[in-house]
Amino acid sequence: MEYSPNTDFLALALRQRRQKLANLINFPVLLWSGGKISRNYPANTFPFRASSHFLYFAGLPLENAVIYLKDGKLELFIDNAHPSKTLWQGETPKREEIANRIGADAAFPLSDLESRVRNAATIAVQDYSTLLQQSQLLDRPLPIAKSPNGIDLELTKAIISLRLTHDRAALAELRQATAVTVEAHKAGMAATSKAKNEAGIRAAMESKIITENMTFAYPSIVTTRGEILHNEHYHHPLQKGDLLLADVGAETAMGWAGDVTRTWPISGKFSPTQRAIYDVVLAAHDACIAKMLPGVEYVDIHLLAAQVIAEGLVDLGILQGQPDDLVEMDAHALFFVHGIGHLIGLDVHDMEDFGDLAGYQEGRVRSNRFGLNYLRLNRTLQPGMLVSIEPGFYQVSGILNSQKNRLKYQNVVNWDKLEQFADVRGIRIEDDVLITETGTEVLTANLPTHAEEIEQLVNGCGIEIK
Amino acid sequence: MEYSPNTDFLALALRQRRQKLANLINFPVLLWSGGKISRNYPANTFPFRASSHFLYFAGLPLENAVIYLKDGKLELFIDNAHPSKTLWQGETPKREEIANRIGADAAFPLSDLESRVRNAATIAVQDYSTLLQQSQLLDRPLPIAKSPNGIDLELTKAIISLRLTHDRAALAELRQATAVTVEAHKAGMAATSKAKNEAGIRAAMESKIITENMTFAYPSIVTTRGEILHNEHYHHPLQKGDLLLADVGAETAMGWAGDVTRTWPISGKFSPTQRAIYDVVLAAHDACIAKMLPGVEYVDIHLLAAQVIAEGLVDLGILQGQPDDLVEMDAHALFFVHGIGHLIGLDVHDMEDFGDLAGYQEGRVRSNRFGLNYLRLNRTLQPGMLVSIEPGFYQVSGILNSQKNRLKYQNVVNWDKLEQFADVRGIRIEDDVLITETGTEVLTANLPTHAEEIEQLVNGCGIEIK
Repeated sequence: MEYSPNTDFLALALRQRRQKLANLINFPVLLWSGGKISRNYPANTFPFRASSHFLYFAGLPLENAVIYLKDGKLELFIDNAHPSKTLWQGETPKREEIANRIGADAAFPLSDLESRVRNAATIAVQDYSTLLQQSQLLDRPLPIAKSPNGIDLELTKAIISLRLTHDRAALAELRQATAVTVEAHKAGMAATSKAKNEAGIRAAMESKIITENMTFAYPSIVTTRGEILHNEHYHHPLQKGDLLLADVGAETAMGWAGDVTRTWPISGKFSPTQRAIYDVVLAAHDACIAKMLPGVEYVDIHLLAAQVIAEGLVDLGILQGQPDDLVEMDAHALFFVHGIGHLIGLDVHDMEDFGDLAGYQEGRVRSNRFGLNYLRLNRTLQPGMLVSIEPGFYQVSGILNSQKNRLKYQNVVNWDKLEQFADVRGIRIEDDVLITETGTEVLTANLPTHAEEIEQLVNGCGIEIK
Repeated sequence: MEYSPNTDFLALALRQRRQKLANLINFPVLLWSGGKISRNYPANTFPFRASSHFLYFAGLPLENAVIYLKDGKLELFIDNAHPSKTLWQGETPKREEIANRIGADAAFPLSDLESRVRNAATIAVQDYSTLLQQSQLLDRPLPIAKSPNGIDLELTKAIISLRLTHDRAALAELRQATAVTVEAHKAGMAATSKAKNEAGIRAAMESKIITENMTFAYPSIVTTRGEILHNEHYHHPLQKGDLLLADVGAETAMGWAGDVTRTWPISGKFSPTQRAIYDVVLAAHDACIAKMLPGVEYVDIHLLAAQVIAEGLVDLGILQGQPDDLVEMDAHALFFVHGIGHLIGLDVHDMEDFGDLAGYQEGRVRSNRFGLNYLRLNRTLQPGMLVSIEPGFYQVSGILNSQKNRLKYQNVVNWDKLEQFADVRGIRIEDDVLITETGTEVLTANLPTHAEEIEQLVNGCGIEIK
């Protein structure tokens, strides 16, 4: 059936997105949303997450749906829920209702999909079961999303060029995600004095996100072992002298992510050594954001962070030499072990399913340098990009105690001095930075970064928990 | 390599389980744990959940591991984490350490698995990627777990006979899961007066579970629309006259489940109509538990609940006729729309991946009767079984307003009377009941069921939140 145009905000935004896509490619596109994935038995599933590319053009997290995009038009393929499912899931919107909401031009049951497969490009989804459907229906093998061929590669590049910068509808979602993320971090700080272990702080933070009917953009990191970058354990007790590193982000119902890290002292007071390193990391954070502008290279922002960290560590006597030379020889990377950040959007590492096709500008490849290899994004900044800025300092035993590094950096690290900083396992400060026409807007600016303000929040001052 | 016997509690329990398995079958067994499953891009995964059958014999939630069971011996196949992963995940236990903890007789890298495939039975796991590995390595097609063939079917039956009743190690875990589940419900009741919507209550409940370093045994149901049985929405505002139905369960790190439902008034006071129906459901709940004993048929417990509910609804004037006759004609099922419960263990619907092979005693099949068809368990009760008892009353529009039902039950339902109970959408009271040698032990008995006690908890009286 055909529909009259829906002029709602969502429908209009989606129509613009597919018009832009139509300007870039001249073949039809089929995008699958995916289905629920079984956890321990078929009816007990993980919470549904629709494919991000589907969400970008279809707006709603529809299960087992497919959209057909051609010449700026959208056809929706979805089956109405079987009446017997009403007992278990309640009344669900009918195909026509959904189609109207997203401004579809037509809508059909899934069985009609076969008529739309000719010459259609697609993106391989994450879940195997849907991937098999894609491959069977299109009657061709589908490599994973970071290795597309032919028109699938053309489609991938077109989607990247659209999703790299955010439109008004996307920004509205991203502002919601970051606002709730900020509240979660405040709740975590406020809960610290009463929590018994990392799990207690995690609970306070995630509870804030659950209360707002959002989910988690990635597995929360809430740990006194900040040097383990993707630590998903929460059992450590909280010791007075520990730092707590919390990297927690909310995701809106439509799939848009927030991504924030703060590091705070369990006791409510940084030790002098913790404070000294914290201020080095914060200086790098502030310097990066101050330099960001359209036209600036993100890799230069990364190198700026490396430079500021090297300078700070020289000032503290941990590194020895000229900061420029230290960065040149990757000495900063002994402590600042990852990249300065990444794209943020419908994925917390936006479009990471495309691998470096998304993160790296065409013609650029990952550096083999120890200090650059982990950089997830290497593009010229443009207005509308949202990126994380997340400098850090970590004492990773495997890096600092490797014989190779001990030898290579024997003259630039003051190992005795470093031992005085043993109470600094890991510090990271991460904000979500939108590139504007004239500079930046930090979407997470409502969450303090300065050490004294952090201490105040941990001590329960100056905060109103809603 | 070979190991000396580990005499820890876990290792001993696991050794007993595999000895029992060896008494039942005479072929070797390979069980896969499964891997992490991608959410929106490969590195962003759902929280890992090991296969329940693997957990039963291997004890620990190991990723990408396989165990080989033969003649009561266990060989563990797992790869040590690549050193480069330490940066992201920290130090992980080595193969030998894990093997010792679970009392393995030997341990090898995964590449050695090929030498163990001959004549080995297996259980199909849930995740596709691992399922493909299983099928490729065993070099035969693997149907889903509820449709096994040959030795896989024999293995399935053997595992069912073991997992049907719980040993001491399992009960220790189940007691932890149910204890935290009880605390979560108390927290939900206590949070009700301050919550703005369902999500606020859900957050208080899940927060309790996260604090205890557990996860959720199933997607939480926290809803004012209790008549939708598996409602996974949390956006409804809380109205004074509403009932809140919460079906939330904790799962221990080792995978053992709790499963509890309570229904409470948002205002802290049941209306007279809500209270009247609540007491009918509670009478059914209490009558069922009082009758449970080894040797009793679970289907008779279900029919007892039906009988008590029919009697109660006759007393209230909603149903008309003799309760026996009403149950015979399934009139109770207009309101008590599901079965009285199910097995609980490593899965909240234990072994539901095996379908009715697990839930139904050999030779028994699901009834086609409207009032019996949804019963998930039809077995003779035995000591060591843990089952849920969860009678309910729901007003499901699709059932009550179907023309067929209106016609069939026109003389047994007083539809005018029923309208007076419009403020009762859905009530369920669910506890976890262990069958003992002499009767039952309600593992969730610390959570009150009586209406006045529930009201007190919602009103913040008589409760200490830890």
